[in-house]
Amino acid sequence: VTIPEFGQIAWLPDNAGVQILDQTLLPGEERRLEITTIEQMAEAIGRLRVRGAPLIGVAAAMGVAGAIRRLGAAATRRAVLDACDYLGKTRPTAVNLRWALDRMARHADAVEEGETLGRAMVEEAQAIWDEDQAMCRRIGEAGLPLVPTGATVMTHCNAGALATGGIGTALAPVYLAHQAGRRVSVIADETRPLLQGARLTAWELSRAGVPVTVITEGMAASRLRVGDITCVLVGADRIAANGDVANKIGTYGLALAARAHGVPFYVAAPASTFDPATPDGAAIPIEIRKEEEVRGWTGVQWAAPAARVWNPAFDVTPAELVTGYLTDAGRLSAAELGRLRR
Amino acid sequence: VTIPEFGQIAWLPDNAGVQILDQTLLPGEERRLEITTIEQMAEAIGRLRVRGAPLIGVAAAMGVAGAIRRLGAAATRRAVLDACDYLGKTRPTAVNLRWALDRMARHADAVEEGETLGRAMVEEAQAIWDEDQAMCRRIGEAGLPLVPTGATVMTHCNAGALATGGIGTALAPVYLAHQAGRRVSVIADETRPLLQGARLTAWELSRAGVPVTVITEGMAASRLRVGDITCVLVGADRIAANGDVANKIGTYGLALAARAHGVPFYVAAPASTFDPATPDGAAIPIEIRKEEEVRGWTGVQWAAPAARVWNPAFDVTPAELVTGYLTDAGRLSAAELGRLRR
Repeated sequence: VTIPEFGQIAWLPDNAGVQILDQTLLPGEERRLEITTIEQMAEAIGRLRVRGAPLIGVAAAMGVAGAIRRLGAAATRRAVLDACDYLGKTRPTAVNLRWALDRMARHADAVEEGETLGRAMVEEAQAIWDEDQAMCRRIGEAGLPLVPTGATVMTHCNAGALATGGIGTALAPVYLAHQAGRRVSVIADETRPLLQGARLTAWELSRAGVPVTVITEGMAASRLRVGDITCVLVGADRIAANGDVANKIGTYGLALAARAHGVPFYVAAPASTFDPATPDGAAIPIEIRKEEEVRGWTGVQWAAPAARVWNPAFDVTPAELVTGYLTDAGRLSAAELGRLRR
Repeated sequence: VTIPEFGQIAWLPDNAGVQILDQTLLPGEERRLEITTIEQMAEAIGRLRVRGAPLIGVAAAMGVAGAIRRLGAAATRRAVLDACDYLGKTRPTAVNLRWALDRMARHADAVEEGETLGRAMVEEAQAIWDEDQAMCRRIGEAGLPLVPTGATVMTHCNAGALATGGIGTALAPVYLAHQAGRRVSVIADETRPLLQGARLTAWELSRAGVPVTVITEGMAASRLRVGDITCVLVGADRIAANGDVANKIGTYGLALAARAHGVPFYVAAPASTFDPATPDGAAIPIEIRKEEEVRGWTGVQWAAPAARVWNPAFDVTPAELVTGYLTDAGRLSAAELGRLRR
C-alpha cells in the first residue's frame, strides 16, 4: 500500500507554466490543463478547476512563477506584483492564497529583474509546494492516533490530496492509517452544491483502496446517531486567531451534529490557513457564489425557476465546537494555535 | 389572493380511477397520469410520483376505491383486502398509508358486495380526502399565529399542498398568512436526494405568489445563525406516542441547528400521522431506498462509481427538539398528542 499520487498539479517543461487536473470534470474524466498565463490560472481558480485552500496557494504561486519565467529577460518585479494582485482577487475566503502570493511578492523584492527573477520565482513556488507536501504529512502524523484500526471517519467536502499539493489535510491521517495497514473507512457527504464529497473525496479514497460511503448532507446527523463514527475530520479555508474556522458551507451544521452526539470534531490545516490578523469568524469574508450552482448541476436545472437562491460558499464553525486542530505543528487546542509558524 | 389549487389528485369520470400529478417531473413538466389499477397506484407511490404522507393516504384510498368501482357487480371484500395489503407494502415509514387502507378495509366489512361495495369505497375515499383538506386548514389555523407579517419560515422537503389533498401541513400556516395579506417568505432547503424542496416546495410557493429562497441543506445552520428565521415548520411521516417524529432525511440535523440558535421548531401533521401504537422513534421502520438516488439525479451520475452509498429516506427527530405540533386539534405539546382522534 502506498500513498496515492493523483497528479493534481505539476510543472510544465522548463517551469514555463503549470499543469493542473481539471477537478470540475472528476470523477467522469481525468483531463489535465496547461496553464501558462495569469488569466488562465485566475479562471482555473475562480471556476474551481483547481480548488482546496492549500492547493490554491500552491497553484497560485506556481502560476505566478510560470508566467514570470516565460517573460525571460523581460521579467520585472512590477509583473510579479501585478500577477499577485490579480490572482489574489479570485477567491476571498481562503487565506492560503493571499499568504502564498504575499510570499512570492516578498521574495521578488530581493531579487534582480530578468532571468534571475524568473528562476527565483520558480524556486520559491517549488519551496511552497515542497512545504505543503511536508505539512500534509505532518498533519497526517498529528491525526494518526485518532484513526485506529476499525475507525470510521466522517468528512465533508474534499480536504484530501486533491485539495493540496500532497496527501491532503483531513484525509492525511486516513491515508497514513491505511498505509500502516489499519482497516479504516470513510463516510463522505456529497457536499452540495459542487459535490466535492461525492465527486472528489469518494474518487481519491476509492482510488487509494480506502472504503468510502457517500451520503447526502441531510444524512450526517442520522449517521452520527448510529454510533459508528470515530471522529469527524474536515479541512479549513481560514482559521481565525480565536480558532473559529471558515470552511466549506455545511461544516457548521456538521459540527453541531457531531457535538450533539459527542463525536470528536477535528479541523486539519497547515499553518498557512491560520490567520492571526483575523480576530474571529465574524471578520472572515464569506464568498457568495452564483445562483446557478444551487439551481442544479452541470446543465440540469431542477429548482423552480421563480425561486430565489442564497449561495454562500463557506460557513464559520465557532472554536467551541472544535475538539482540536491537526496542524503541521501537531495536534493543537484553540489556545495553542499561536504556535503555528507561517 | 386565494389558496392555490394544484390538481395534485382528482377522480377520473365516474370515479373509475384516479388522476395524479406526476411529481417526479416537476417543476419542468406538469403531467397528469390516469391510474386505474392497484398496480399502477403501487408504482406511482413507490416511485414517488405521488408522495407526501397525507397525500399517499388519500391516493391509496382513492386508488382502492377506483379499482373496486371498476369491478362493478364483481366487487368483493376479498378484492378490497387484497388491494389494501398490496398498497400497504409500498412504503413502510408513513403511517397515514396504513391508516387510510385500514379504514377502507374496515369500511368494506359492513357493506354488501357488488356495485354497492364500489360505491361505498368511493364514498369512504372521498371522506378521507375531504377530511384531509379540512385537516390541512385546521393545521394552518393552528400555525397562523407563528407566522406574523414579516415572518421568514424555514422548511424542509415538501410538506405543502403537493404533499396533501389540501393546502399542505407545514405550508398551510404560510398560505393562510399570505391569504390574510401578511408579508411572509420561505427558505426551502433543496432536500437531497430527491430535491423535493427545490423542485416542489419552491414550485408551489412561487406559483402561489409567496417569495421563496432555495438553499442547500448545508446552508441551513448558517442561515439560522443569520437571525432572520421566525420558525422552522416541517411535516411528518409518523409521530410516535412519545412525540418522536419520523420525517424526510435531514429533518433531524435541521432540528439540531434550530435548537442551537433558539429558533422554534414545529412539526405539522394531521391526526392520521400520529401512531400511538409506536412507543418512540426507535420503533419506527426507516425505509432504505436505492443507491442510485444518492449517486446523482435523473440520468446524471456524479458520485465516484467505486464508492458505496447509504440512503435512508427518513430520520427521527426526538420529541425534545420539537417546540410543538401543529395538528387538526390545534397546537399541541408532546404530552398532549394523545388528544388527537384518528
